[in-house]
Amino acid sequence: MTEFGWPTGGISYGGDYNPEQWPRHVWDEDVALMRQAGVNLVSVGIFSWALLEPREGEFDFGWLDDVLDLLHRNGIAVDLGTPTAAPPAWFYDAYPHARVVTRDGVALGPGSRGMVSPSSPEYRAAAVRVAGELARRYADHPAVVLWHVHNEYGAPVGEDFSPAAVAAFREWLRERYGTLDALNAAWGTAFWGQVYGSWEHVGAPAATASTPNPAQRLDFARFTDHQLRASFCAERDAIRAHAAQPVTTNFMAHQSWNTDLWRWAQEVDIVSDDHYLWSPDRDAHLGLAIAADLTRSVARGKPWMLMEHSTSAVNWQGHNIAKRPGEMHRNALTHLGRGADAIMFFQWRASRSGAEKFHSAMLPHAGTGSRVFREVVDLGEKLGRLAEVQGSRVRADVAVLYDWESLWAQDLEWRPSDELGFRERVRAYYERLWRDGVPVDFAHPEDDLSGYRLVVAPASYLLTAAAAKNLTGYVEQGGTLLVSCFSGVVDEHDAVHEGGFGAPLRTALGVAVEELLPIRGEDTAHVELDGTLLPTDVWSEHLVLDGAEVRGTYRGGPADGLPAVTRHALGAGTGWYVSTRLGVAALAPVLAAVYADAGVTPTAPGDGVELMTRHGADHDYLVAVNHREDAATLEVVGTELLSDTVAEGSYRLAPGDVAVFRTSATAPGGGR
Amino acid sequence: MTEFGWPTGGISYGGDYNPEQWPRHVWDEDVALMRQAGVNLVSVGIFSWALLEPREGEFDFGWLDDVLDLLHRNGIAVDLGTPTAAPPAWFYDAYPHARVVTRDGVALGPGSRGMVSPSSPEYRAAAVRVAGELARRYADHPAVVLWHVHNEYGAPVGEDFSPAAVAAFREWLRERYGTLDALNAAWGTAFWGQVYGSWEHVGAPAATASTPNPAQRLDFARFTDHQLRASFCAERDAIRAHAAQPVTTNFMAHQSWNTDLWRWAQEVDIVSDDHYLWSPDRDAHLGLAIAADLTRSVARGKPWMLMEHSTSAVNWQGHNIAKRPGEMHRNALTHLGRGADAIMFFQWRASRSGAEKFHSAMLPHAGTGSRVFREVVDLGEKLGRLAEVQGSRVRADVAVLYDWESLWAQDLEWRPSDELGFRERVRAYYERLWRDGVPVDFAHPEDDLSGYRLVVAPASYLLTAAAAKNLTGYVEQGGTLLVSCFSGVVDEHDAVHEGGFGAPLRTALGVAVEELLPIRGEDTAHVELDGTLLPTDVWSEHLVLDGAEVRGTYRGGPADGLPAVTRHALGAGTGWYVSTRLGVAALAPVLAAVYADAGVTPTAPGDGVELMTRHGADHDYLVAVNHREDAATLEVVGTELLSDTVAEGSYRLAPGDVAVFRTSATAPGGGR
Amino acid sequence: MTEFGWPTGGISYGGDYNPEQWPRHVWDEDVALMRQAGVNLVSVGIFSWALLEPREGEFDFGWLDDVLDLLHRNGIAVDLGTPTAAPPAWFYDAYPHARVVTRDGVALGPGSRGMVSPSSPEYRAAAVRVAGELARRYADHPAVVLWHVHNEYGAPVGEDFSPAAVAAFREWLRERYGTLDALNAAWGTAFWGQVYGSWEHVGAPAATASTPNPAQRLDFARFTDHQLRASFCAERDAIRAHAAQPVTTNFMAHQSWNTDLWRWAQEVDIVSDDHYLWSPDRDAHLGLAIAADLTRSVARGKPWMLMEHSTSAVNWQGHNIAKRPGEMHRNALTHLGRGADAIMFFQWRASRSGAEKFHSAMLPHAGTGSRVFREVVDLGEKLGRLAEVQGSRVRADVAVLYDWESLWAQDLEWRPSDELGFRERVRAYYERLWRDGVPVDFAHPEDDLSGYRLVVAPASYLLTAAAAKNLTGYVEQGGTLLVSCFSGVVDEHDAVHEGGFGAPLRTALGVAVEELLPIRGEDTAHVELDGTLLPTDVWSEHLVLDGAEVRGTYRGGPADGLPAVTRHALGAGTGWYVSTRLGVAALAPVLAAVYADAGVTPTAPGDGVELMTRHGADHDYLVAVNHREDAATLEVVGTELLSDTVAEGSYRLAPGDVAVFRTSATAPGGGR
Repeated sequence: MTEFGWPTGGISYGGDYNPEQWPRHVWDEDVALMRQAGVNLVSVGIFSWALLEPREGEFDFGWLDDVLDLLHRNGIAVDLGTPTAAPPAWFYDAYPHARVVTRDGVALGPGSRGMVSPSSPEYRAAAVRVAGELARRYADHPAVVLWHVHNEYGAPVGEDFSPAAVAAFREWLRERYGTLDALNAAWGTAFWGQVYGSWEHVGAPAATASTPNPAQRLDFARFTDHQLRASFCAERDAIRAHAAQPVTTNFMAHQSWNTDLWRWAQEVDIVSDDHYLWSPDRDAHLGLAIAADLTRSVARGKPWMLMEHSTSAVNWQGHNIAKRPGEMHRNALTHLGRGADAIMFFQWRASRSGAEKFHSAMLPHAGTGSRVFREVVDLGEKLGRLAEVQGSRVRADVAVLYDWESLWAQDLEWRPSDELGFRERVRAYYERLWRDGVPVDFAHPEDDLSGYRLVVAPASYLLTAAAAKNLTGYVEQGGTLLVSCFSGVVDEHDAVHEGGFGAPLRTALGVAVEELLPIRGEDTAHVELDGTLLPTDVWSEHLVLDGAEVRGTYRGGPADGLPAVTRHALGAGTGWYVSTRLGVAALAPVLAAVYADAGVTPTAPGDGVELMTRHGADHDYLVAVNHREDAATLEVVGTELLSDTVAEGSYRLAPGDVAVFRTSATAPGGGR
Repeated sequence: MTEFGWPTGGISYGGDYNPEQWPRHVWDEDVALMRQAGVNLVSVGIFSWALLEPREGEFDFGWLDDVLDLLHRNGIAVDLGTPTAAPPAWFYDAYPHARVVTRDGVALGPGSRGMVSPSSPEYRAAAVRVAGELARRYADHPAVVLWHVHNEYGAPVGEDFSPAAVAAFREWLRERYGTLDALNAAWGTAFWGQVYGSWEHVGAPAATASTPNPAQRLDFARFTDHQLRASFCAERDAIRAHAAQPVTTNFMAHQSWNTDLWRWAQEVDIVSDDHYLWSPDRDAHLGLAIAADLTRSVARGKPWMLMEHSTSAVNWQGHNIAKRPGEMHRNALTHLGRGADAIMFFQWRASRSGAEKFHSAMLPHAGTGSRVFREVVDLGEKLGRLAEVQGSRVRADVAVLYDWESLWAQDLEWRPSDELGFRERVRAYYERLWRDGVPVDFAHPEDDLSGYRLVVAPASYLLTAAAAKNLTGYVEQGGTLLVSCFSGVVDEHDAVHEGGFGAPLRTALGVAVEELLPIRGEDTAHVELDGTLLPTDVWSEHLVLDGAEVRGTYRGGPADGLPAVTRHALGAGTGWYVSTRLGVAALAPVLAAVYADAGVTPTAPGDGVELMTRHGADHDYLVAVNHREDAATLEVVGTELLSDTVAEGSYRLAPGDVAVFRTSATAPGGGR
Repeated sequence: MTEFGWPTGGISYGGDYNPEQWPRHVWDEDVALMRQAGVNLVSVGIFSWALLEPREGEFDFGWLDDVLDLLHRNGIAVDLGTPTAAPPAWFYDAYPHARVVTRDGVALGPGSRGMVSPSSPEYRAAAVRVAGELARRYADHPAVVLWHVHNEYGAPVGEDFSPAAVAAFREWLRERYGTLDALNAAWGTAFWGQVYGSWEHVGAPAATASTPNPAQRLDFARFTDHQLRASFCAERDAIRAHAAQPVTTNFMAHQSWNTDLWRWAQEVDIVSDDHYLWSPDRDAHLGLAIAADLTRSVARGKPWMLMEHSTSAVNWQGHNIAKRPGEMHRNALTHLGRGADAIMFFQWRASRSGAEKFHSAMLPHAGTGSRVFREVVDLGEKLGRLAEVQGSRVRADVAVLYDWESLWAQDLEWRPSDELGFRERVRAYYERLWRDGVPVDFAHPEDDLSGYRLVVAPASYLLTAAAAKNLTGYVEQGGTLLVSCFSGVVDEHDAVHEGGFGAPLRTALGVAVEELLPIRGEDTAHVELDGTLLPTDVWSEHLVLDGAEVRGTYRGGPADGLPAVTRHALGAGTGWYVSTRLGVAALAPVLAAVYADAGVTPTAPGDGVELMTRHGADHDYLVAVNHREDAATLEVVGTELLSDTVAEGSYRLAPGDVAVFRTSATAPGGGR
């Protein structure tokens, strides 16, 4: 893969810019205000297909020429979008069979956003054509420093049951399995008499009388990811045929169910991510941190772009909370502290019309006199002081396993409990690590994990034999592995591992899971750990020891008296198993013991003060974010870059404030 | 428009009469019992299409002749229905494409109730034909004093996505906008790349991958209202071609989303309304009062008919509460006190079969020995004593703004909060006024408001520039205006007003809304007003003063310390703004201050005692309803008509009781 | 009907066996372990259509020959299934019009389980063909002792709106009503103008704008039951053409809405039932007891088979609770105590793949070393000691009325309250009787009830005139009848009885129901009975006495001061009426009074100790199950068969334990 320089000097700053929503005279004001705000990069043309190709095959680039020229004249670089996330009305009219069809057979029409079927050959051809025409025209435009293909693949269009999709799924399966016998075996079709005798009978898991075959659904999730990715690659290649700038597409690291970002990140030149706070979450900055770490991890540690976030409220949740003064700065700096070298927003100027007019913007409806615009200008100014941070890297000693295939599988119908979820467990373990001040990478279970002191598997329901072997080897070689309940249950075909639940981890953990024992409804139980009773709920398991020592024991509940938390010494390492759904607080003493085994040192200066370090060639950069309502005292020696002041050992970080310190470089380390 | 006399002598009393559900011998008993009950008007033939036109184009009026003759012989007048709310099964069979189609593409079949597509030419033709045939036959029948077109337009059939509807919508849009450019501008289609290049591509907002264009949805709501209204007008005109009696159709003032009654009321000769209590509401008589005032208001103050209410329980709610002894009388008298000159029920005799057999009736399943029938007879007797009230009018000094277009717009997807609703705010402000004993009219924001001392705008999210100008002028000329939060936000195209939220009201209110600050989930905050802390939730705003004085300040919540309630002196008047969602109790001190500005005097003799005055040519009539469980003492001089007793200054109104006093006339006044 | 001997010696024990899910070498292990577990019967081939007929008309019985031979060689008998609950993928492909269509028009595809349309002629032909071929081949196979047609008719496929179903419904209606006039009268189509003028216009109650005609829906429920039953009968007859073994199909007594088991039980040679605990129910063994008594009752007292239950957790509920040690034994013995002579499981060996891999099995994923397998072996051993119990009968002095037609009718839209349900009331009255230790049969309201001392009608909303006459005669002849609220409301056409609610029971109960008075939302009221205040909610009625005495009076609520519970002496008997929804505890004093009238003696030795007696030719067998967490002392003289110990008057039943005593025979009695 080509190595590309960073698209802008220093940290990129800006947002989606949709001048087509405004009269021409507004554009000049826009550009002047962008300069005032320190904007150096904008994303243009994301939803402009109907304007760029008003009739099939007829292109009108004049207005876009004007926009790019104007931006360039003002020193603002452009991330140029392909508009294929919103096909024009004429496309729907000309190719009605390209429409996405829901599981229940409803064909989705125009007048909103969202692509048509990623399996439609007509859509693929039209998308490639418009991407190619854009690339041909703007390959050499000096404003264009990056290509932005499509928008947020996987939302709102994910699974598609159109005839084109069914046909493509069949071909994909043929490719994957080769023979019907292999497919029948993989899907376990002998169950419920689903054996296929002809490829022509194999279809998508559309509406059925009862639950569809879970392996079929899992493969359909893989296929959905594949088709979306193939759509991306086709556009990317059409661009590369003409243009030399890097190509990205904006991920949604912690909010998409439909894209396996480990695979996607291999296809883009620069990883970028969109992130929005979830209003009901009082600690939504935790979700933000997860997304940022996950994005950096799929980027394999390379700098990435925060392509979209919001200056204040969004509009598409049920009850949309606005950001309070300073919150945007904290959010932006957390992204930066976790590896983002671009801080971008949706969008520059708030739309007067359409579905997102209540989405906040850099320039809100209230105009330049508003708090939001003042903070936008201030943030631009601050980021301008951080140019030297660009390119520095984050390191972690701890890896948290994250596998979209396991997420897909655990979310299928008819699991032992709907109340035990992939994301809930990832969040709980991540939050424990965050509150303890332990930096983490995310990793795929089959990754080389040897650089990490500790590997945490919060939700590895689906775990291949290869992954289990990888984890076992990791322990044998001296690693510390912490596995959460309901892990290692099924293989890549959603078939229970031979030997029973958790069988492939038996060597690593020294324990067998005889039976799953969900805790009834509103009941709770406890785990007794070193004399303390930790409350738990929803889930317990009947463990049978096979070498492990008991560290926690169930008190109450269906597993009363049985082992709850175990520790197993294997080779040079240690395997821990937590067989129940402990909350964030209850995880604290468990993790403390695990840290001790792993040689990991918690560093949190206080709950709610977030410290992140980026390692540059010559310096380290300590990014500090105070989420608390009181001041925090940091122990730090270095220069605070935002205020250009020197910290000589101690620094008072005001309530809600942020700081970035240039410090002396530490020795390399961490997982990557 | 022709001025019609009232259809009956005195107050009309009766209900829907469906003799076709019963054998012939029952009819004679029916009529005898109607006479016993004082019934003078019944609605006939509402659902009789299949009997009147058993095969397409073949009419059978014999049975209806018998019914009308029988009723006429017994002195009971007839409100004759057109049966088009329930097309016969043969119609569905002959014209399957006329079926209503849901947003998801499901075509709705026969065997229930509800019209087919109001956009279907075949339906229109058939409806006009049967209405015309009825009018031709019964134009001169002496029993027929009123025509009752259809039934409850807008329910259960509202939005329709059939091919006929899509085609008609396109034509309606062409008519409305003239050019595609105008439509693209109005809908803001540049957003999300929805620009239309051909009228043929413009459709209804059926199922889409994400949220449809809100301006398109708003126009589709207008179109839905228009098509239903056009259906009504076509039938009305077919009747007028033959018959001279007035024509009505029964509205559902506070329960329909699909009809803009300001427009509908202009098309009928007499306004009529159906009203049913909402069982979960412990103060369902408040909803009743709103509906009655709204009905009178769309009738522009003229007498109106309560076409349907219930003697006791209904059947179509989840858990249907029966009325308790006396409650029917209270309900009936509240309608009357708020301007109704007809008190009618659905239905005369309870059906043994069908979907509504558990709906109460004037003659219940339990027969004439029942409490309900005794109360029906008693009510008939009482209403007979009120003949002189017929034709008198209600006056109010306060107007509450109510605009269906704003209701439609605020209910669309992706607003800042689903928890802030049009109806909830209308109810809260209305309830405050009701408990304070302040009579109100409802008004459209573009109405002449100069006759009112106070105008309250509880939910004017959509407010046109013309309406804002109207309200500003009203204040300048000395009016008192009270505006609730999230008002003046968008124009008629659901586009945010230039200048930001509330910009068109900035002159009237002396305040700008910089940002919307919904209060998180279960949180509450307070408004400090004159030293008192008023609890609030769900909503706050960041206000910037532009001339107004601060009357209430946020304590806690995202707007802590900012202005919450403001008062602005403009010209001869005053503009108040309440930027949060205060409950009924918390509104009390705010309204008290507003009343003082407006010169409005609360008159409630006690919470739960409802006083309503109708003004006749020579006398006033004070209608009193005691919702309390203890007696109330009224200050009144006059003759209590129901008991024919004289009140010489004080009258004891027993718990749950009603009274109607003839008093001396007061001077004219009020909004109309 | 032929009388068949019991399929196995002694109590049948085993489960579904699906060897096709496993490689051949596993089969030998299976059979060896079955022998270890005492298995003597397995159900084979339930979902094997795609393997038995891999292409249309081509049969492959080789593997099944092997399975049956292997089982037979090991002394394990076979219940041979017809595989028609899961048509092969080729069937869906060849006959797309045979697919089930939902009310909203969605056609259900393959890849799950569930039959196609029971009204499809193509399906019927294919099902009969495969059943016939199986019967031809295996009629004389010595392993086959029973035929198991299909699987759980009614789930997941119930109502079907396919074109074939609509056509068949029309024919069924023609057969039922003869003339359109009769249909129009029965359905009350005069209401809402639904009168049919042509059979061709009559359809299924598919999607409509408002509520469909309830009598049409009720008939559609009857039709659905009829079509499923006709499917069964066609397969049964195809088997009988070749084979002499008895034929069954597995019912779901308390969990199916779609089958009227009174009718079904007449069509099978041996009644069998599937039962699974409902996880949210902390007393799920109550639901089990209901199902078992209901199954025995539809079998008219003859021995029946528990065809499926689970060794531990199921997988298809939201949160699936595992059985605790001993619970499987208690469940099995309760079934046996209530008349089951077969204790079978789904399934023998847990599936690795497919939708039910988390369903427990006799041989779980954890293998033979597991608690579950140990208990399975132990249960087999215990049941082996109970061979002499086989064939003995249960007797009861009390009948609880249960009528699927009433369940269907009460569940239709637009009843007075969604919160008053058929099953809830059946459970409440049954639970009261269970806790009082009173054995019951279920009975149909038109059954001969003369053998019972007490008849309880918990939910007889639909009650025909014939049934009411039957109940009245029962009272007159000396019976005690206890009727719960909202009974006798409609006839077989869901039409309110002439004379009002409950009119046909007026003679029996001496009371008329003037009005239904649901209690509002969260409100409660009380019934004063003999000086005690019993709490109640949801429902009350306005009763008018017609001969009955008042035993309980409403205190509070809408019926305050009115009669709540009445007792009426008629002829030699007594009719009780409880007009509100009393809970299990509040029913205790009411039932105590009723027992006294009926001469029924409660026998419970303590809440949670379940005693059941089976009466054999020479002995009685007392089955005791202790659901408590402490030991119980039983008064019993006899031999405890499981431990082969003698009880000489007193027996200590350990917490959670079970026992079966051979005691001396008592005199015959009971309802049947």
